[in-house]
Amino acid sequence: MEQIYDLIIVGSGPAGLGAAIYAQRAELKTLVIEKEMVSGGQVLTTYEVDNYAGLPGMNGFDLGMKFREHADKLGAEFKEDTVLRIEVCGEGGETLDAQRGGAERGGELLQAAEAMPESGVLKRIVCENTSYLTKTVIIATGAHHRKLGAAGEERLTGMGVSYCATCDGAFFKNKTTAVVGGGDVAIEDAIFLSRLCKKVYLIHRRDELRGAKSLQSRLLSMENVEVCWDTVVESIDGGDQVESLKLKNKKTGEDQTLPVDGIFIAVGISPNSEAFKGLVEMDAGGYILAGEDGKTSVPGVFAAGDVRTKKLRQIVTAVADGANCVTSAEQYLSLF
Amino acid sequence: MEQIYDLIIVGSGPAGLGAAIYAQRAELKTLVIEKEMVSGGQVLTTYEVDNYAGLPGMNGFDLGMKFREHADKLGAEFKEDTVLRIEVCGEGGETLDAQRGGAERGGELLQAAEAMPESGVLKRIVCENTSYLTKTVIIATGAHHRKLGAAGEERLTGMGVSYCATCDGAFFKNKTTAVVGGGDVAIEDAIFLSRLCKKVYLIHRRDELRGAKSLQSRLLSMENVEVCWDTVVESIDGGDQVESLKLKNKKTGEDQTLPVDGIFIAVGISPNSEAFKGLVEMDAGGYILAGEDGKTSVPGVFAAGDVRTKKLRQIVTAVADGANCVTSAEQYLSLF
Repeated sequence: MEQIYDLIIVGSGPAGLGAAIYAQRAELKTLVIEKEMVSGGQVLTTYEVDNYAGLPGMNGFDLGMKFREHADKLGAEFKEDTVLRIEVCGEGGETLDAQRGGAERGGELLQAAEAMPESGVLKRIVCENTSYLTKTVIIATGAHHRKLGAAGEERLTGMGVSYCATCDGAFFKNKTTAVVGGGDVAIEDAIFLSRLCKKVYLIHRRDELRGAKSLQSRLLSMENVEVCWDTVVESIDGGDQVESLKLKNKKTGEDQTLPVDGIFIAVGISPNSEAFKGLVEMDAGGYILAGEDGKTSVPGVFAAGDVRTKKLRQIVTAVADGANCVTSAEQYLSLF
Repeated sequence: MEQIYDLIIVGSGPAGLGAAIYAQRAELKTLVIEKEMVSGGQVLTTYEVDNYAGLPGMNGFDLGMKFREHADKLGAEFKEDTVLRIEVCGEGGETLDAQRGGAERGGELLQAAEAMPESGVLKRIVCENTSYLTKTVIIATGAHHRKLGAAGEERLTGMGVSYCATCDGAFFKNKTTAVVGGGDVAIEDAIFLSRLCKKVYLIHRRDELRGAKSLQSRLLSMENVEVCWDTVVESIDGGDQVESLKLKNKKTGEDQTLPVDGIFIAVGISPNSEAFKGLVEMDAGGYILAGEDGKTSVPGVFAAGDVRTKKLRQIVTAVADGANCVTSAEQYLSLF
């Protein structure tokens, strides 16, 4: 008989690790599946985290390590693998839908799940290397950086186009860079780069920034930062390296060529939910529909952290989601 | 002109301190009012906290201090005072309800608030020593230990009757004690006391414990702990000190006198919401009706942590509530 887990957690960022900590304390037979070699998710590439209560001024990578060490200390089991899909199974583990063709599966899995009783249904987690049977799943796959969609962006990615200033900033010491965006991350990136670079342009399509006021005042106090308001990037140009940007001012209609050595794109995130399309209900942006308790449209499948519909995507709200999902999972398991 | 705060946070447990950290980062003019000399709330009297991600195996008092130091580091302003009530005011700070008689105010404040526009309404925080004007409030007053309601309980409180094993356990070294309850706290208390006391009875009115499985197995491995299932405490007896308990088995109807030196009551918590009755809507248990975003029935008044209606009352979910409430408050303030 194949081993059956009480809980499989997909992803090991703050939400997944928060869930792992609660699951270990609850003595659930738990497995965490992470596609990367390192746990921590988006936290890993954050330069400084100053709003996770109790651990002020932490380097993001160190905070991710602390979360992982905590889960390790409690004995959590981890596997490195990529989850391709989740199948709803009968009590013996037999797959309930015949088709497995990704998007074509349409609403069939969902219908199967809806036709099920509230309990007693196993899920098969199909990974690249193997598959696992479990009674409950927490999807904690997080989100990723959104593309700008400008001409030249894809061709020059890694050759001056970057989505992570804290990862790649050091390559642009004493050079000229641009950051695109108007939220917390864009402002943080510009501040971070201003310490390294000769000159930093912050390019924002509106006439007002969205990021925290404290960050805005810090940004505006940086002498080598210049904000290009009402401006969009039309193309990213260069041979085998970024050389310049073609900008357009949305108000005046004016075009401008801005010579830069690098461009950092910080225009938001998209959920990592592709593998679960057709399984759980999502909003138009691909976020999994789930409230504070993490319950998705499929009984026994929960969503925690940035991948679910929520207002505030922060480290502490992701960790809290992990705790809430384990409580919901325990409740579901008590029906088995 | 009287000073007007952007935000006043009532209470400085994990929810209030979580809010203070986010409010400082958002550069809101913020004041935290705490009735105790020390911040931390219920965390302070928790022996060991092992589920706040990133800080495994922390002493509760130390964790409370870490949260407070984090808020201090960001420059949060604190006052020691007791909030008596919150009044909804006009734009000039004039109180909108004439009556101020506590419960008698009934729904009048609420009606006043409902008649208001969504923004531009100040709140007056009336404390024992002074009062403050603010645009928004986060109620983060937490909860307190529930009484058992047994005969002799009130008379012998502090003389063998305690609600905090970690606070008072040391007084019962090598003595015999009882813990009443079946949840996490009751089990933790019994485990903690078993290391100090000669003998510990865990008295529970059901035939099954509710607490985490890991705790249950640790409890049952303690040789000097005995669980009294299906049992209720009818009275706590003694002269000027607890001497014995009168127990009744609910299944057999059998009475029993159990000689003990102390009794620790761990039968749950009640919200500290008395001061806000008639202001915001509450459920039958006195918890303030508010969802994940912390919005109460009164615009600009938010509730975070154990005092609001929620499923999982934990440190990390309280801290997350604080962050969510500040985001809601910022949204409300942007309408001013």
